Amino acid sequence: MELLKQRIRQDGTVKGTDVLKVDSFLNHQMDIDLFEEIGKEFKRRFEGCGVNKILTIEASGIGIACIAARHFHCPVVFAKKSQSKNIAGAVYAARVESFTHGRVYDVIVSRKFLGPGDRVLIIDDFLANGAALEGLTDLVSQSGAQLAGAGIVIEKAFQPGGDRLRAKGIRVESLARVKSMSETGGVEFTD
Amino acid sequence: MELLKQRIRQDGTVKGTDVLKVDSFLNHQMDIDLFEEIGKEFKRRFEGCGVNKILTIEASGIGIACIAARHFHCPVVFAKKSQSKNIAGAVYAARVESFTHGRVYDVIVSRKFLGPGDRVLIIDDFLANGAALEGLTDLVSQSGAQLAGAGIVIEKAFQPGGDRLRAKGIRVESLARVKSMSETGGVEFTD
Repeated sequence: MELLKQRIRQDGTVKGTDVLKVDSFLNHQMDIDLFEEIGKEFKRRFEGCGVNKILTIEASGIGIACIAARHFHCPVVFAKKSQSKNIAGAVYAARVESFTHGRVYDVIVSRKFLGPGDRVLIIDDFLANGAALEGLTDLVSQSGAQLAGAGIVIEKAFQPGGDRLRAKGIRVESLARVKSMSETGGVEFTD
Repeated sequence: MELLKQRIRQDGTVKGTDVLKVDSFLNHQMDIDLFEEIGKEFKRRFEGCGVNKILTIEASGIGIACIAARHFHCPVVFAKKSQSKNIAGAVYAARVESFTHGRVYDVIVSRKFLGPGDRVLIIDDFLANGAALEGLTDLVSQSGAQLAGAGIVIEKAFQPGGDRLRAKGIRVESLARVKSMSETGGVEFTD
Protein backbone atom coordinates (compact mmCIF):
# COMPACT_ATOMS: atom_id res chain seq x y z
CA MET A 1 0.00 0.00 0.00
CA GLU A 2 1.94 2.95 -1.37
CA LEU A 3 0.28 5.69 0.73
CA LEU A 4 1.22 3.82 3.90
CA LYS A 5 4.80 3.21 2.82
CA GLN A 6 5.19 6.90 2.00
CA ARG A 7 3.87 7.81 5.41
CA ILE A 8 6.23 5.41 7.16
CA ARG A 9 9.17 6.85 5.22
CA GLN A 10 8.07 10.39 6.03
CA ASP A 11 7.01 10.13 9.67
CA GLY A 12 8.40 6.84 10.98
CA THR A 13 11.53 6.84 13.11
CA VAL A 14 13.96 3.95 13.37
CA LYS A 15 15.62 3.25 16.73
CA GLY A 16 18.50 0.82 16.62
CA THR A 17 17.93 -2.00 14.16
CA ASP A 18 14.49 -3.23 15.07
CA VAL A 19 12.31 -0.50 16.61
CA LEU A 20 10.11 1.41 14.18
CA LYS A 21 8.26 4.25 15.89
CA VAL A 22 5.07 5.23 14.11
CA ASP A 23 3.37 6.80 17.10
CA SER A 24 2.56 10.05 15.30
CA PHE A 25 0.00 8.38 13.02
CA LEU A 26 -0.59 4.73 13.94
CA ASN A 27 -0.39 3.70 17.58
CA HIS A 28 -0.52 6.68 19.92
CA GLN A 29 -1.77 9.53 17.78
CA MET A 30 -3.99 8.00 15.11
CA ASP A 31 -4.57 9.51 11.66
CA ILE A 32 -8.17 8.56 10.94
CA ASP A 33 -7.99 9.52 7.25
CA LEU A 34 -5.12 7.08 6.85
CA PHE A 35 -7.05 4.46 8.84
CA GLU A 36 -9.92 4.90 6.39
CA GLU A 37 -7.61 4.05 3.47
CA ILE A 38 -6.18 1.11 5.43
CA GLY A 39 -9.70 -0.15 6.10
CA LYS A 40 -10.60 0.05 2.40
CA GLU A 41 -7.48 -1.86 1.47
CA PHE A 42 -8.25 -4.66 3.96
CA LYS A 43 -11.75 -4.82 2.48
CA ARG A 44 -10.32 -5.07 -1.04
CA ARG A 45 -7.99 -7.89 -0.04
CA PHE A 46 -10.56 -9.89 1.94
CA GLU A 47 -13.57 -9.13 -0.26
CA GLY A 48 -15.72 -12.20 -0.78
CA CYS A 49 -14.25 -14.08 2.18
CA GLY A 50 -17.50 -13.97 4.13
CA VAL A 51 -15.97 -12.12 7.08
CA ASN A 52 -18.64 -11.55 9.73
CA LYS A 53 -16.42 -10.67 12.68
CA ILE A 54 -13.15 -8.81 13.17
CA LEU A 55 -10.89 -9.83 16.03
CA THR A 56 -8.14 -7.57 17.30
CA ILE A 57 -6.14 -7.06 20.49
CA GLU A 58 -5.91 -4.11 22.84
CA ALA A 59 -4.84 -1.43 22.60
CA SER A 60 -3.38 -0.27 19.33
CA GLY A 61 -5.27 -2.69 17.08
CA ILE A 62 -8.66 -1.39 18.14
CA GLY A 63 -8.85 1.85 16.19
CA ILE A 64 -7.77 0.28 12.91
CA ALA A 65 -10.15 -2.66 13.42
CA CYS A 66 -13.11 -0.37 14.12
CA ILE A 67 -12.54 1.79 11.06
CA ALA A 68 -12.03 -1.31 8.89
CA ALA A 69 -15.21 -2.89 10.28
CA ARG A 70 -17.29 -0.13 8.71
CA HIS A 71 -16.33 -1.61 5.34
CA PHE A 72 -17.14 -5.19 6.38
CA HIS A 73 -20.38 -4.22 8.17
CA CYS A 74 -19.56 -6.49 11.08
CA PRO A 75 -18.76 -6.16 14.78
CA VAL A 76 -15.28 -6.03 16.26
CA VAL A 77 -14.17 -8.06 19.26
CA PHE A 78 -10.99 -7.06 21.01
CA ALA A 79 -8.98 -9.62 22.96
CA LYS A 80 -7.83 -8.41 26.35
CA LYS A 81 -4.36 -8.81 27.75
CA SER A 82 -4.38 -10.24 31.21
CA GLN A 83 -1.68 -11.38 33.56
CA SER A 84 -3.86 -12.92 36.22
CA LYS A 85 -7.51 -13.42 35.42
CA ASN A 86 -9.78 -15.59 37.42
CA ILE A 87 -12.39 -16.17 34.79
CA ALA A 88 -11.86 -19.78 33.79
CA GLY A 89 -14.72 -21.22 31.81
CA ALA A 90 -16.13 -17.96 30.58
CA VAL A 91 -13.30 -17.16 28.19
CA TYR A 92 -11.00 -18.56 25.56
CA ALA A 93 -7.42 -17.89 26.64
CA ALA A 94 -4.02 -18.26 25.03
CA ARG A 95 -0.57 -17.65 26.46
CA VAL A 96 1.55 -15.08 24.60
CA GLU A 97 5.26 -14.56 25.11
CA SER A 98 6.17 -11.08 23.95
CA PHE A 99 9.78 -10.84 22.81
CA THR A 100 9.39 -7.12 22.22
CA HIS A 101 8.26 -6.35 25.76
CA GLY A 102 9.96 -9.23 27.54
CA ARG A 103 6.86 -10.50 29.29
CA VAL A 104 4.31 -13.27 29.21
CA TYR A 105 0.59 -12.61 29.30
CA ASP A 106 -2.71 -14.23 28.44
CA VAL A 107 -4.99 -13.00 25.70
CA ILE A 108 -8.63 -13.65 26.47
CA VAL A 109 -11.95 -13.36 24.69
CA SER A 110 -15.36 -14.08 26.16
CA ARG A 111 -16.89 -17.28 24.81
CA LYS A 112 -20.05 -15.32 24.10
CA PHE A 113 -18.46 -13.42 21.25
CA LEU A 114 -16.70 -16.07 19.13
CA GLY A 115 -18.17 -19.35 17.95
CA PRO A 116 -18.60 -21.87 15.15
CA GLY A 117 -20.85 -19.53 13.17
CA ASP A 118 -18.14 -16.91 12.81
CA ARG A 119 -15.77 -16.24 9.95
CA VAL A 120 -13.05 -14.14 11.47
CA LEU A 121 -10.61 -11.58 10.13
CA ILE A 122 -7.84 -10.75 12.59
CA ILE A 123 -6.53 -7.18 12.37
CA ASP A 124 -3.49 -5.76 14.11
CA ASP A 125 -1.06 -2.89 13.70
CA PHE A 126 2.25 -4.82 13.83
CA LEU A 127 3.55 -8.28 13.06
CA ALA A 128 7.11 -9.09 14.09
CA ASN A 129 7.76 -12.33 15.97
CA GLY A 130 4.13 -13.25 15.60
CA ALA A 131 3.47 -14.20 19.21
CA ALA A 132 0.36 -12.04 19.61
CA LEU A 133 -1.05 -13.09 16.24
CA GLU A 134 -0.45 -16.73 17.04
CA GLY A 135 -2.35 -16.25 20.31
CA LEU A 136 -5.27 -14.73 18.44
CA THR A 137 -5.38 -17.58 15.89
CA ASP A 138 -5.37 -19.97 18.84
CA LEU A 139 -8.45 -18.24 20.28
CA VAL A 140 -10.21 -18.56 16.93
CA SER A 141 -9.39 -22.29 16.78
CA GLN A 142 -10.64 -22.87 20.31
CA SER A 143 -13.94 -21.20 19.47
CA GLY A 144 -14.62 -23.37 16.43
CA ALA A 145 -14.84 -20.27 14.24
CA GLN A 146 -13.24 -20.21 10.81
CA LEU A 147 -10.26 -17.94 10.21
CA ALA A 148 -10.42 -15.93 6.99
CA GLY A 149 -6.94 -14.53 7.59
CA ALA A 150 -4.99 -11.75 9.20
CA GLY A 151 -4.72 -8.14 8.03
CA ILE A 152 -1.60 -6.45 9.35
CA VAL A 153 -0.63 -2.81 8.86
CA ILE A 154 3.16 -3.16 9.22
CA GLU A 155 5.06 -6.43 9.06
CA LYS A 156 8.71 -6.57 10.01
CA ALA A 157 9.47 -9.10 7.30
CA PHE A 158 13.01 -9.56 8.63
CA GLN A 159 11.54 -11.12 11.75
CA PRO A 160 10.12 -14.65 11.62
CA GLY A 161 6.45 -14.25 12.59
CA GLY A 162 4.88 -13.69 9.17
CA ASP A 163 6.70 -16.58 7.49
CA ARG A 164 5.94 -18.96 10.33
CA LEU A 165 2.22 -18.17 10.24
CA ARG A 166 2.05 -18.40 6.43
CA ALA A 167 3.80 -21.79 6.64
CA LYS A 168 0.92 -22.95 8.82
CA GLY A 169 -1.47 -22.11 6.00
CA ILE A 170 -2.76 -18.85 7.49
CA ARG A 171 -3.42 -16.09 5.00
CA VAL A 172 -1.48 -13.04 6.22
CA GLU A 173 -1.91 -9.79 4.30
CA SER A 174 0.47 -7.04 5.39
CA LEU A 175 0.03 -3.59 3.89
CA ALA A 176 3.69 -2.63 4.36
CA ARG A 177 6.43 -5.25 4.69
CA VAL A 178 9.68 -3.87 6.03
CA LYS A 179 12.69 -5.68 4.57
CA SER A 180 15.29 -3.80 6.56
CA MET A 181 15.74 -0.59 8.45
CA SER A 182 18.41 1.45 10.13
CA GLU A 183 18.78 4.81 11.85
CA THR A 184 20.86 6.20 9.01
CA GLY A 185 19.43 4.37 6.00
CA GLY A 186 15.73 4.62 6.85
CA VAL A 187 13.20 1.93 5.97
CA GLU A 188 13.26 -0.42 2.98
CA PHE A 189 10.21 -2.39 1.94
CA THR A 190 9.73 -5.70 0.20
CA ASP A 191 6.82 -6.84 -2.00
CA MET B 1 -29.82 9.31 22.92
CA GLU B 2 -32.81 7.03 22.62
CA LEU B 3 -31.22 4.33 20.41
CA LEU B 4 -28.47 3.88 22.99
CA LYS B 5 -30.85 3.73 25.92
CA GLN B 6 -32.92 1.09 24.12
CA ARG B 7 -29.81 -0.93 23.49
CA ILE B 8 -28.72 -0.72 27.12
CA ARG B 9 -32.19 -1.83 28.25
CA GLN B 10 -32.16 -4.68 25.76
CA ASP B 11 -28.60 -6.00 26.00
CA GLY B 12 -27.12 -4.52 29.18
CA THR B 13 -26.85 -6.66 32.30
CA VAL B 14 -26.85 -5.32 35.83
CA LYS B 15 -24.67 -7.05 38.44
CA GLY B 16 -25.31 -6.01 42.02
CA THR B 17 -26.12 -2.32 42.35
CA ASP B 18 -23.32 -0.69 40.41
CA VAL B 19 -21.95 -2.92 37.65
CA LEU B 20 -23.52 -2.45 34.22
CA LYS B 21 -22.20 -4.97 31.71
CA VAL B 22 -22.44 -3.76 28.13
CA ASP B 23 -19.71 -5.97 26.74
CA SER B 24 -21.87 -7.36 23.94
CA PHE B 25 -21.96 -4.02 22.11
CA LEU B 26 -19.73 -1.41 23.74
CA ASN B 27 -16.51 -2.52 25.41
CA HIS B 28 -15.53 -6.04 24.41
CA GLN B 29 -17.61 -6.80 21.34
CA MET B 30 -18.23 -3.47 19.59
CA ASP B 31 -21.25 -2.70 17.43
CA ILE B 32 -19.81 -0.38 14.81
CA ASP B 33 -23.22 0.69 13.45
CA LEU B 34 -24.11 1.88 16.95
CA PHE B 35 -20.70 3.57 17.27
CA GLU B 36 -21.48 5.42 14.04
CA GLU B 37 -24.67 6.85 15.57
CA ILE B 38 -22.79 7.69 18.77
CA GLY B 39 -20.15 9.50 16.72
CA LYS B 40 -22.80 11.53 14.89
CA GLU B 41 -24.41 12.49 18.18
CA PHE B 42 -21.10 13.69 19.66
CA LYS B 43 -20.58 15.72 16.49
CA ARG B 44 -24.06 17.25 16.84
CA ARG B 45 -23.42 18.20 20.46
CA PHE B 46 -19.92 19.61 19.92
CA GLU B 47 -20.53 21.15 16.49
CA GLY B 48 -18.90 24.55 16.17
CA CYS B 49 -16.57 24.04 19.14
CA GLY B 50 -13.48 24.02 16.95
CA VAL B 51 -12.41 20.54 18.03
CA ASN B 52 -9.17 19.60 16.27
CA LYS B 53 -8.12 16.65 18.43
CA ILE B 54 -9.90 13.85 20.27
CA LEU B 55 -8.31 12.44 23.40
CA THR B 56 -9.33 9.08 24.82
CA ILE B 57 -7.84 6.40 27.04
CA GLU B 58 -7.00 2.79 26.34
CA ALA B 59 -8.58 0.42 25.77
CA SER B 60 -12.35 0.69 25.48
CA GLY B 61 -12.49 4.39 24.59
CA ILE B 62 -10.42 3.95 21.44
CA GLY B 63 -13.00 2.44 19.10
CA ILE B 64 -15.66 5.02 19.91
CA ALA B 65 -13.16 7.87 19.62
CA CYS B 66 -11.92 6.68 16.21
CA ILE B 67 -15.41 6.34 14.75
CA ALA B 68 -16.38 9.74 16.19
CA ALA B 69 -13.22 11.33 14.78
CA ARG B 70 -14.42 10.63 11.25
CA HIS B 71 -17.13 13.23 11.88
CA PHE B 72 -14.72 15.79 13.34
CA HIS B 73 -12.03 15.18 10.69
CA CYS B 74 -9.31 15.21 13.29
CA PRO B 75 -6.78 12.79 14.77
CA VAL B 76 -7.27 10.77 17.94
CA VAL B 77 -4.69 10.47 20.70
CA PHE B 78 -5.11 7.74 23.24
CA ALA B 79 -3.63 8.08 26.70
CA LYS B 80 -1.81 5.00 27.92
CA LYS B 81 -2.18 3.45 31.33
CA SER B 82 1.12 2.81 32.97
CA GLN B 83 2.17 1.62 36.37
CA SER B 84 5.88 2.18 36.05
CA LYS B 85 7.10 4.16 33.10
CA ASN B 86 10.53 5.60 32.89
CA ILE B 87 9.81 8.29 30.38
CA ALA B 88 9.94 11.46 32.44
CA GLY B 89 10.16 14.58 30.37
CA ALA B 90 8.74 13.12 27.19
CA VAL B 91 5.16 12.79 28.45
CA TYR B 92 2.41 14.48 30.36
CA ALA B 93 1.38 12.21 33.21
CA ALA B 94 -1.45 12.21 35.75
CA ARG B 95 -2.14 9.85 38.62
CA VAL B 96 -5.51 8.07 38.53
CA GLU B 97 -7.03 6.16 41.43
CA SER B 98 -9.55 3.70 40.04
CA PHE B 99 -12.27 2.88 42.54
CA THR B 100 -13.79 0.37 40.15
CA HIS B 101 -10.63 -1.68 39.78
CA GLY B 102 -9.03 -0.88 43.12
CA ARG B 103 -5.72 0.27 41.74
CA VAL B 104 -3.66 3.35 41.07
CA TYR B 105 -2.02 4.01 37.74
CA ASP B 106 -0.62 6.83 35.65
CA VAL B 107 -2.17 8.03 32.42
CA ILE B 108 0.40 9.35 30.01
CA VAL B 109 0.44 11.14 26.68
CA SER B 110 3.48 12.08 24.65
CA ARG B 111 4.17 15.82 24.70
CA LYS B 112 4.47 15.66 20.92
CA PHE B 113 0.75 15.11 20.48
CA LEU B 114 -0.94 17.71 22.71
CA GLY B 115 -0.12 21.40 22.90
CA PRO B 116 -1.36 24.98 23.08
CA GLY B 117 -2.68 24.89 19.51
CA ASP B 118 -5.13 22.10 20.29
CA ARG B 119 -8.82 22.26 21.10
CA VAL B 120 -9.57 18.91 22.64
CA LEU B 121 -12.67 16.77 22.96
CA ILE B 122 -12.26 13.94 25.44
CA ILE B 123 -14.25 10.80 24.61
CA ASP B 124 -14.74 7.77 26.83
CA ASP B 125 -17.17 4.90 27.22
CA PHE B 126 -18.02 5.27 30.94
CA LEU B 127 -18.12 7.97 33.58
CA ALA B 128 -18.69 6.90 37.18
CA ASN B 129 -16.40 8.28 39.87
CA GLY B 130 -14.66 10.41 37.29
CA ALA B 131 -11.10 9.52 38.19
CA ALA B 132 -10.01 8.63 34.66
CA LEU B 133 -11.74 11.65 33.15
CA GLU B 134 -10.16 13.93 35.72
CA GLY B 135 -6.76 12.49 34.82
CA LEU B 136 -7.39 13.23 31.15
CA THR B 137 -8.49 16.82 31.83
CA ASP B 138 -5.29 17.21 33.88
CA LEU B 139 -3.21 16.11 30.86
CA VAL B 140 -5.01 18.66 28.70
CA SER B 141 -4.29 21.43 31.26
CA GLN B 142 -0.62 20.48 31.47
CA SER B 143 -0.29 20.67 27.69
CA GLY B 144 -1.72 24.18 27.44
CA ALA B 145 -4.43 22.93 25.08
CA GLN B 146 -8.01 24.13 25.43
CA LEU B 147 -10.67 21.65 26.53
CA ALA B 148 -13.88 21.76 24.50
CA GLY B 149 -15.52 19.21 26.78
CA ALA B 150 -16.05 15.52 27.36
CA GLY B 151 -18.32 13.18 25.42
CA ILE B 152 -19.30 10.14 27.44
CA VAL B 153 -21.35 7.19 26.23
CA ILE B 154 -22.76 6.02 29.59
CA GLU B 155 -22.71 8.07 32.78
CA LYS B 156 -23.61 6.47 36.07
CA ALA B 157 -25.34 9.62 37.27
CA PHE B 158 -25.80 8.13 40.74
CA GLN B 159 -22.03 8.25 41.20
CA PRO B 160 -20.31 11.58 41.82
CA GLY B 161 -17.89 11.98 38.87
CA GLY B 162 -20.12 13.81 36.41
CA ASP B 163 -21.41 16.35 38.91
CA ARG B 164 -17.94 17.04 40.27
CA LEU B 165 -16.52 17.69 36.81
CA ARG B 166 -19.46 19.88 35.79
CA ALA B 167 -19.01 21.87 39.01
CA LYS B 168 -15.47 22.63 37.83
CA GLY B 169 -16.93 24.20 34.70
CA ILE B 170 -16.17 21.30 32.37
CA ARG B 171 -18.80 20.60 29.75
CA VAL B 172 -19.72 16.93 30.09
CA GLU B 173 -22.15 15.49 27.56
CA SER B 174 -23.32 11.96 28.37
CA LEU B 175 -25.47 10.13 25.83
CA ALA B 176 -27.15 7.92 28.44
CA ARG B 177 -27.32 8.93 32.10
CA VAL B 178 -28.21 6.06 34.41
CA LYS B 179 -30.25 7.26 37.39
CA SER B 180 -30.47 3.89 39.08
CA MET B 181 -30.19 0.22 38.30
CA SER B 182 -30.78 -3.16 39.88
CA GLU B 183 -30.65 -6.81 38.89
CA THR B 184 -34.41 -7.15 39.12
CA GLY B 185 -35.58 -3.68 38.08
CA GLY B 186 -33.19 -3.10 35.19
CA VAL B 187 -31.86 0.32 34.27
CA GLU B 188 -33.54 3.70 34.72
CA PHE B 189 -32.30 6.81 32.98
CA THR B 190 -32.40 10.49 33.81
CA ASP B 191 -32.40 13.48 31.44
